[in-house]
Order: sequence, then structure tokens, then C-alpha cells
Amino acid sequence: MPDEKLTRNAAGRMVPTEVNGKEVIPYKGVATHRPTGVRAAPSVATCIDSPDSGDKTGPDIKAALKAAGIRDGMTVSTHHHLRNGDFVANAVFAAAAELGVKDLMWFPSASFPCQAGMIEHMENGVIHHIEGSMNGPLGEHCSYGKMKGVGVLRSHGGRYRAVQDGDVHIDIAVIAGPTADPFGNAHGLTGPTACGLLGFALADSQYADKVIVVTDNLIDFPCIPWQIQGNYVDFVTTMESIGDSSKIVSGTTQITKSPDRLRIAEMTARFVRDTGIMRDGFSFQCGAGGTALSFAIFLMEMMREANVKARFVRGGSTQYLTAMLEEGLTDYILDGQTFDLEGVRSMRENPNHVNTSPFTSYNYHGKGNFAPMLDCVVLGATEVDVNFNANVVTHSDGKLLHGIGGWQNCLASKCTILPIPSFRNRIPVLVDEVTTLCGPGELIDVVVTERGLAINPRREDLLSAVAGSGLPVRPIEEIKAEVEAFCGGPPAKPDCEDRVVAVIEWVDGTVIDAVRQLKVK
Amino acid sequence: MPDEKLTRNAAGRMVPTEVNGKEVIPYKGVATHRPTGVRAAPSVATCIDSPDSGDKTGPDIKAALKAAGIRDGMTVSTHHHLRNGDFVANAVFAAAAELGVKDLMWFPSASFPCQAGMIEHMENGVIHHIEGSMNGPLGEHCSYGKMKGVGVLRSHGGRYRAVQDGDVHIDIAVIAGPTADPFGNAHGLTGPTACGLLGFALADSQYADKVIVVTDNLIDFPCIPWQIQGNYVDFVTTMESIGDSSKIVSGTTQITKSPDRLRIAEMTARFVRDTGIMRDGFSFQCGAGGTALSFAIFLMEMMREANVKARFVRGGSTQYLTAMLEEGLTDYILDGQTFDLEGVRSMRENPNHVNTSPFTSYNYHGKGNFAPMLDCVVLGATEVDVNFNANVVTHSDGKLLHGIGGWQNCLASKCTILPIPSFRNRIPVLVDEVTTLCGPGELIDVVVTERGLAINPRREDLLSAVAGSGLPVRPIEEIKAEVEAFCGGPPAKPDCEDRVVAVIEWVDGTVIDAVRQLKVK
Repeated sequence: MPDEKLTRNAAGRMVPTEVNGKEVIPYKGVATHRPTGVRAAPSVATCIDSPDSGDKTGPDIKAALKAAGIRDGMTVSTHHHLRNGDFVANAVFAAAAELGVKDLMWFPSASFPCQAGMIEHMENGVIHHIEGSMNGPLGEHCSYGKMKGVGVLRSHGGRYRAVQDGDVHIDIAVIAGPTADPFGNAHGLTGPTACGLLGFALADSQYADKVIVVTDNLIDFPCIPWQIQGNYVDFVTTMESIGDSSKIVSGTTQITKSPDRLRIAEMTARFVRDTGIMRDGFSFQCGAGGTALSFAIFLMEMMREANVKARFVRGGSTQYLTAMLEEGLTDYILDGQTFDLEGVRSMRENPNHVNTSPFTSYNYHGKGNFAPMLDCVVLGATEVDVNFNANVVTHSDGKLLHGIGGWQNCLASKCTILPIPSFRNRIPVLVDEVTTLCGPGELIDVVVTERGLAINPRREDLLSAVAGSGLPVRPIEEIKAEVEAFCGGPPAKPDCEDRVVAVIEWVDGTVIDAVRQLKVK
Repeated sequence: MPDEKLTRNAAGRMVPTEVNGKEVIPYKGVATHRPTGVRAAPSVATCIDSPDSGDKTGPDIKAALKAAGIRDGMTVSTHHHLRNGDFVANAVFAAAAELGVKDLMWFPSASFPCQAGMIEHMENGVIHHIEGSMNGPLGEHCSYGKMKGVGVLRSHGGRYRAVQDGDVHIDIAVIAGPTADPFGNAHGLTGPTACGLLGFALADSQYADKVIVVTDNLIDFPCIPWQIQGNYVDFVTTMESIGDSSKIVSGTTQITKSPDRLRIAEMTARFVRDTGIMRDGFSFQCGAGGTALSFAIFLMEMMREANVKARFVRGGSTQYLTAMLEEGLTDYILDGQTFDLEGVRSMRENPNHVNTSPFTSYNYHGKGNFAPMLDCVVLGATEVDVNFNANVVTHSDGKLLHGIGGWQNCLASKCTILPIPSFRNRIPVLVDEVTTLCGPGELIDVVVTERGLAINPRREDLLSAVAGSGLPVRPIEEIKAEVEAFCGGPPAKPDCEDRVVAVIEWVDGTVIDAVRQLKVK
């Protein structure tokens, strides 16, 4: 679409002013755009239309989609708590294809390689486009301009916000429930495909016109706890299996074995300790990647040594976080998703391991959320530039391969730390300008590489705090220059067409950057 | 207002077509009125307006009301989980009076004698009128036409519905939280004024423009569990004490000692057993009055004898229900309010003692609710007529003295039983026509009096089920005639003016009856 209208946003990025036929607002800066209007308002339901027995079960997904009135052009949502083991999203679009429905918008909370079959549905016209993260093959498909519509990537909080604000109207939500009752109450704590919690589907349950719960573990009412409330649910149906449990949660999560990554993890923990962020009653969040887990283990040891206890840690939970909870190193885990079996067990058994949702944790258009209360967060990035701007969705070759997850939302933390290798596959991670802007540099405080730590010059307080700590603090430009020398120069620029294939929303719904179509080589 | 427009509704009652300046819909029959339109849609908030620290605390209620923008004519809501020990509602209107605000609508989930001081606020013009149950002195005040506006009585489910549907727009909700954190998360499980749960305030938190949490037990974030979610809360403030704990929950709940009431309770339990309602996996709900408690005790014994286990029982919980749970006579208590200290303890400690809300249990404009799933409910009434229509709000003298509570919502049960004395203070309870219609006779299945049981002729199945049980089943007219002979005739008709002082809403928001002003004698 060479004739699409572009404008330069407050981050200096050229972004479209219209996406999939709807006007969008260019990014205006951090904490600048003020929403107007009211929350989305679903139609008022009536118990006249619900069975007195409370039994909303029907034969299968296809029948439920028909009962929900599926038709061309609708938006159908799924959640990703079953991660790369999910069977439900594929079953939904297979049923839609059988029903002959076309041009659906798929609105997953994230998509995974196990859903690569959606490419066929896009080619056959069942799916028009995807709004949601596209990890792996779907991202690549989008990168090469093969999707009819424009992809819209939102953070977890941004997705909740978009639904709440009415930017995205979900016609039919299909919610995989590892345990559910005939009324539609559901949770993820038990059953053959237990995934811990169902927070990513909260917005869908609250705001969709029609809500379908699919389970492989139907129990008598009441299904306790009701992480998804049956009072929002229209139909319940069963599948023999909703997922492959081995791909939903890991048996155990693994720490990194790479000496460089271990060094990065340890430096990150030392930074948190030496700056005094690690103190009684503090809080932190880290992911479930190898470096993040190693950071957590180093920090636990430092907390034990200093006799320091956290008030809360935020999951994605793993065996390491649950060990912290059980050892008394934290009062609470506030958890957005469980990454291993220990996480699921702990959430099931320990009332201080609390399930959260993008509403509680990340929604920027709420009366506050949890993210800014975090004393520090430890996150990843595919690229960081000399102004501390960061990218998490594309690689330097321009390929869209990752979703945003909670990453943008977490930047609200009091101290955002990116422990990253300075290069990957001999391509520098530190760059002059990120390929795709996902997080503004003013919100990113520290980059920790195997070559030293770079602290954002805006954070004079942190620069003072580490003085004398012995930590190898260096200007980001210096580390970058060293890496470029080692790798033989900066990464090559991606070879792109003009056409925008996806946009990146900021937490407030404005468009912070656009992803352009890759040339086929 | 002799010129107010009245119409005859489907129950044959003359009701106004306009209440407090708003058009209302006359009752159309059970499961007949279909809502149109969408749920109320509060303004979209933004984190720009919330402190990054998550600390929303301010000095006092007065400051919070000012910050919330209180002004003349607004609707201010409170909840009644602190029952007759509540200090918060009085403090709110004292502060409003000090601020010089006039003509507020007070929208409590229920009001109690401890709030009789509101009469002064009505006389001084601070409060224009009350929508919500008016137990005791406030009801009497309303009965004599001393309130400026018309009272609107709604069931617990009807109140949630009214807020959800936008019939009542809450400008400022003040939520008493026995334990709360600076972000506004709150629960009722612990603290000096623990009341168990906060479900009656759920709608207020979700839909009010501004939400204030008041606590006397402020703890560090996070307050777990967040029965009220801080993400809905604007301001948090403290009082030295939010209530008198001895009047919030009883130390222990008491069974009846009256031989007649015991006989009624035992017959009710025998009815539930002998009709086969009491069977493995069944469910029931009963209140916390003396007769209801005795019923529960008799039933427990019968369940033990027959080795029968319930799937769930619904609270208001008491020591007797918690004993059932702990003894394994039920899998779950699904609880709307805790009536004694044992109820609070059990809810705090036992994950199978589950807090519910009017949304889950009673909202008629949801995708179903819990009420119709109950195998039986045991409720009270002030009057029942020969067509099984029942009254719970006025006495035969026309005085408005009670709220509806969950009573109307519970009528959806598969078997509604009213165990009631056939007369009180030598005034018959069985009548030709109820003074105020609160529940249509077609939903009331059995009346159990000390003179025998009357089964609604519509329920031929129940009549068959008790045949041969030896239970003293009698036509309702026969019991009524016997009582009238004993009491010296039917109750005298109340001496009323034409003016409507209050209306009774049905669960769907239509007006089922009106209460008229009493003549001053």
C-alpha cells in the first residue's frame, strides 16, 4: 500500500494514521496521551436466555461457534496459557473453516509455533489477519507481507486496554479451561492440561459478546476457584484434550549454562544488591529465560546472606520463585503465568502464590496497576540503541519473530534492567537505532552485558549508587563500539518494502512504531 | 402526590410509571421482561492520574469526598457487610454535611438501625432520599412520608443489576474495608472489624465514577486476597475504627428455643428429606434466623443418618454451616455474607468456603446466576397469601420495616420453602392478599407452619413426593381459616394515604409493587 498515509510520531518514527480501516493515534510520548470516552459496554444479558439448570454444555466447538452466531468478518479470540501445547485455537479455526466462515480476525493473547497451521487458514481466507503477538512462523509469514490485514502487536496490558476501551470488539471468545463446570466457571490449577491460571482470558470473558469455555476436565458445579466466572460464559464444550501438557509447562525450568550469561546474571544481581534496591520489603520481576532465572538464583543467595526478605515477587513463576516463597524470602508471588510444574503446584496449594491478570498488573487505562510499584524488573531485548531505546519484536534483519508480552508494561518499574549479551550470532545487539521501537529509552535504566553495565545517564541516582561498588559501569557507546569492532561492524539494515505489515502499540494504545514488509531475496 | 401516574402491572398491583423523575417499567410477569441496551460504561481512566508509588492514601473521609468531587445531587453508595456495627456510612454523611453538600441520594446495599442518624440528614436536606433496604427506623421514617424522594427497594441481585444496567449511576462509592492496602485492595477476612467478605460492594467498585476505600487496618501492598480490587479504587483513607465488631458478626448464632419454631424447622427438614430433595450432590440455602438454623441442624442429622453429602450449601454462613463443611457433609459453602465469627474464621482458613457476590449469585441480567441451581431454599416472610404470593418488606399494618436482601433472587430455586409461624403477636401471617407483593406465588412452593405444610397446587410433583410421608400437608386456605378463627379474624388493612413512598423492584428491574404513606394516627 504505497498510498497509505504516514506521520512522524513523538519518537520520530513514521507510522500509519489508519490501520485495518480504523484511525489510530500516533505515539505522543510517555504518560502524555489522555483517553477520552467510556469503557466498552457489552449488551445486557438476561437469565431468560440461560438454562435454570446452569448447564450450558453442548456437543463440540463447531456447535458452540454456530450457537454463538459466528459469521464472516467476526473477531474471535483465544488465550495462550497453553502456550506451545495449545490444541484449542487450531480446533476453533478448523471448525470455522468447516463452517465456511471467512475473513475472521484472530485475536489471540499470543500465538505460538504450534499454531503455524493458521497460515493455511490465512491463505484460504478463513482468517483475514491476526492482532496479537506472532511468535515464530506466523511472524515470519506476516513479515513477508502475506497477511491480508495489518498485524497489531500489543503488550498484555495493552490488549486488556484495547478490549476495555472498545478498540477491539471481540465477537466470540473461546477460552481453554483445564478444569471447568457446566456453568462455565473455569480454572487452570488441575486437570491433565493444568496451566496454572487464566488471567490472559479475563478481558475476553468480561467484554466479548459470546464466550465459549472449552475443557477436557468437566467437573460438577462449582468449579473452585472460578478464575473465569461462569456468569460471563454462554457455552461450555469439551474436547478429548485441550493441549499437550508437556508443551504447556516445562517439567522444570533451566538456568543458563553459558559462562557469559552467568556473568551477566551475576552482575545484574550485584547491581540490584549494591544499589540498595535489594532491601527488606522490596519487590522484583524477572522472566523465565535462562539468564533471568540465573539472576534470581544469584539474588536469592544475596538475600539470604543479607537476611533480606521481599514483600512480593512477580511471576511468570518457576521452581526458583516458588522456592523463594517457601523458604520465606518473599511474602507473596503475584503471578501472571506459571512456567513450570512447580509453579502450577505452588499456585494450587499456596494461598500466598496469587494469580493476577493483565487488568491488575498492566492495564494502563485503569486506576493504577501493579507495574510501577515494582522496585526492579529484569527483561530481555533483541536490540538496544545508544539512547536506551529497545526492541523486542524484530531482529536486526527486520523479521518479526516475537510478541511484546508484558515487556512494555514492565518498563513502568522503578528500575528497568536489561541483561543481554552484547551480540548474538556475531550480530551486535547494541545499535545506533533499533530496527523497531518497542520501549522508549527514558524508561530503560540499565543494560547489563558481558562487557559491563551501561546506566542510562538520566539515572544519576543509580550512577551515584554504584560508585565504589566495583561493578564495571561503562558508557553504552563504548560497549557498542567494542562489540562492533569484534563483530566486524554494525548489523546490516533490513531490506524492506514501504508497506507496513504490522504496527506496535504503546501501552496507551498509540502507535509507537511500524514493521515493514521484507523483500523476498 | 395525588397527581402521580399509576398503572396496573401484571400482578394486578397499582404502581407508578415514574419514580424520582425517571420512567420505570411495570412488572410484566416472571421471566417476561427482556432488557435492551448495554451495560453501564464508566469513563476510561489512565495511570497518568494514579501515583506510581501505588499509594492512594489521604487524610480522612472528608478529604477523600472532596477529592472525589462531591457535590449537590450526587449518588453516594455504601455497603452493609458491617451490618448494625457500621461506622462508615454515618461518617460519610457527617462529612458531607460538614462540606455543606445537599440532596444526595444514599445508595446503601442495606441500612440498619445504627444509621438512624440519617433521618437528621434527611431533615436537614443533606440526603434527598434512600434507594436500598431500610430496616427499622429509616423504614418507619419513609413509611410516614417524611423522605423527599421515593424509596426504591431492590434485592441484592437487583441492586447489582441496577448498577450494571445503568439504572443507578453511583457518583462516589465508599467501601469499608476491614483490611486494605494503600493501592485500594481490600478484604474482610482479618482486622479488628473483620466481616468475612465484601461482595455487596462489588458493583460499586466496578461501576462508580470514584471509589473510596476506608479502613482501620491498613497493611503494606499487597492485601491478599483482593476481594475489592485496588485497580478500581481512586482513594484510600483510614478511620480509627470502621465499626463495632460485636454488632458486625455475632459471637455465635443462636438456634430457636420456641417449641413451635422447632416444630416448623423439623417439618421443613423432613419435607426436604422425604421429597428426595436431600440426596447426594444436592444443594440448599437457608438464612441465619433461629428457625432456619434449626432447620439446618435437623437436616444435618438426617444427612448423617442417610449418609448423604451436599455438593454445596449457600450462606449467609454460621457456625452450623461451617461445621457441615468441616464434617464433610458438603463439598463447598458458597457464601454471600458471614453471620458469625465462625463464618469469618472458616472463610479465612478454608479454601472450600468461597466468597461470592450478588454478581455470581443473583444478577438476573447476567448469563445465568447461581440461584436457579439451588435444589431448595428456606426463606422467611412477613405475610403469605392464599395464592402463595409473599411479602418481606412491610407488616400487615403497612409499615416498611425490612429490606428484600437476597430473598427475591432465591425464589429462582427449584424448591422455595417458607417456614413461618401462622401468626405473630396474634396477627395472622397467612392472608387473602399480601400488603406488599415482593415475590409472585408461582415461585413459592411450600409454606411450613406449626399447623401443617401447604404445598403450592402448581407443584403436583411435590404433592406426589410427600404422599405417604406422614407430613401434615394441608390446603393453605384451611390453615388460614384456622388461624383467623384463633386470632379473631384477618389482619386489619393498613390506613394509607394515596402517596407512594417506596417501590419494590422485581429482579429484572420492573416495579412489582408500591408502598403507600401511612396516616399519622
